[in-house]
Amino acid sequence: MSDVLRISEIFGPTIQGEGALIGVPTVFVRTGGCDFRCVWCDSLHAVNSEYRHTWAPMSAVDVMAEIRRLSGGVPLTVTLSGGNPAIQPMGDLIEMGRAEGYGFAIETQGSVARDWFAQLDMLVLSPKPPSSEMETDWAILQDCIDAAKDAPTVLKIVVFDEADYAYARDVAARHPDLPIYLQPGNHTPPPPEDDSATVDQDGIDARMRWLVDRVIADHWHAARVLPQLHVMLWGNKRGV
Amino acid sequence: MSDVLRISEIFGPTIQGEGALIGVPTVFVRTGGCDFRCVWCDSLHAVNSEYRHTWAPMSAVDVMAEIRRLSGGVPLTVTLSGGNPAIQPMGDLIEMGRAEGYGFAIETQGSVARDWFAQLDMLVLSPKPPSSEMETDWAILQDCIDAAKDAPTVLKIVVFDEADYAYARDVAARHPDLPIYLQPGNHTPPPPEDDSATVDQDGIDARMRWLVDRVIADHWHAARVLPQLHVMLWGNKRGV
Repeated sequence: MSDVLRISEIFGPTIQGEGALIGVPTVFVRTGGCDFRCVWCDSLHAVNSEYRHTWAPMSAVDVMAEIRRLSGGVPLTVTLSGGNPAIQPMGDLIEMGRAEGYGFAIETQGSVARDWFAQLDMLVLSPKPPSSEMETDWAILQDCIDAAKDAPTVLKIVVFDEADYAYARDVAARHPDLPIYLQPGNHTPPPPEDDSATVDQDGIDARMRWLVDRVIADHWHAARVLPQLHVMLWGNKRGV
Repeated sequence: MSDVLRISEIFGPTIQGEGALIGVPTVFVRTGGCDFRCVWCDSLHAVNSEYRHTWAPMSAVDVMAEIRRLSGGVPLTVTLSGGNPAIQPMGDLIEMGRAEGYGFAIETQGSVARDWFAQLDMLVLSPKPPSSEMETDWAILQDCIDAAKDAPTVLKIVVFDEADYAYARDVAARHPDLPIYLQPGNHTPPPPEDDSATVDQDGIDARMRWLVDRVIADHWHAARVLPQLHVMLWGNKRGV
């Protein structure tokens, strides 16, 4: 019998809107629960315990059945997101999906290392910059990288301001061999119960242009700068 | 003595706005002259012979000096674009740049195959769909793929409508082993002498959403759908 997963939502396929797999058709499995409380979190409905009643307990078999249904049984890349999906027992789901040809990417802050990271098609580590008001445990981040073994691993840093940018430079200096993606922050994240709230896309675009200029001015040619494409196309709307 | 290149513009670094290298800092080398006349071409200033007087004859040494200056001597990926850069002798430039640690990607329609494709870090082949009013020579496209040997090769198809989408499916069926990128077309390309002309970004975004829906409805999970990010961020403006 496999462990129970707490699932906030399963949706898609749509395209991955950010990071290394931008543009790739994917089904999102968003788990409920997080060990962080980033002040600008854009997924509070999957983080704050007051929404816990909306998180369904599901077995890996049930989750896989839903992924299969949504994808028409045609294998694709599944994105495990949250909340922090690393605090949940995803190993069985990954094993089951891989046996059917599905791939798995995970988005996590790198605060919990798991053996099953090594079974991923992509481990996206998003340590949180100063603007989040969270702290980075560098030893655990390293544990995550080590746990992935040969699984492709990338870094993704959300950048709001100069302090975040300096943090991103520090992360890159600590892990020069890992690809790094920079992403302008969304200062207008949706309230947890209103996905129709307006996004200040002009402001985010301005931050994106600033971030490009910043990277170029520093000749930081190994960085890759990408926006949240889904926000540009669909705003804060959920399920796309 | 190396051959003379006809150069429309060299600019950057900025980020690559589309396709496999989206978000990557790059210097663009745009050559002048093209064997195609796509009806929706967004770079007519580098295509139409009436702008030939704006194309500077430059040696590979001169072009490399400009790339070095723009990039502050810090190696990056150089994007060869046009016009059709494959109609020009780029071999010396690529050899020279690679010796200094620079990488080279090329964007070409796949109408001319070159030995030096094998020296590229990425060959982006963009055969033109029906809406362009151009014809595809499938044998030459195959020659291009063969010429690249082990160089990473990807397909990129601009899609305006159902006929273009069907063409993209056909291209993918002919080359199932190559990664394929789909890109919504810009029906408001800039006139060659006015890069401040307005872009109908809402219309392009709607086409992007349609294209995502189309791909998902077909369970075409191997396709990757990406917009022209630079147009979203900077409109038709040149040099960014």
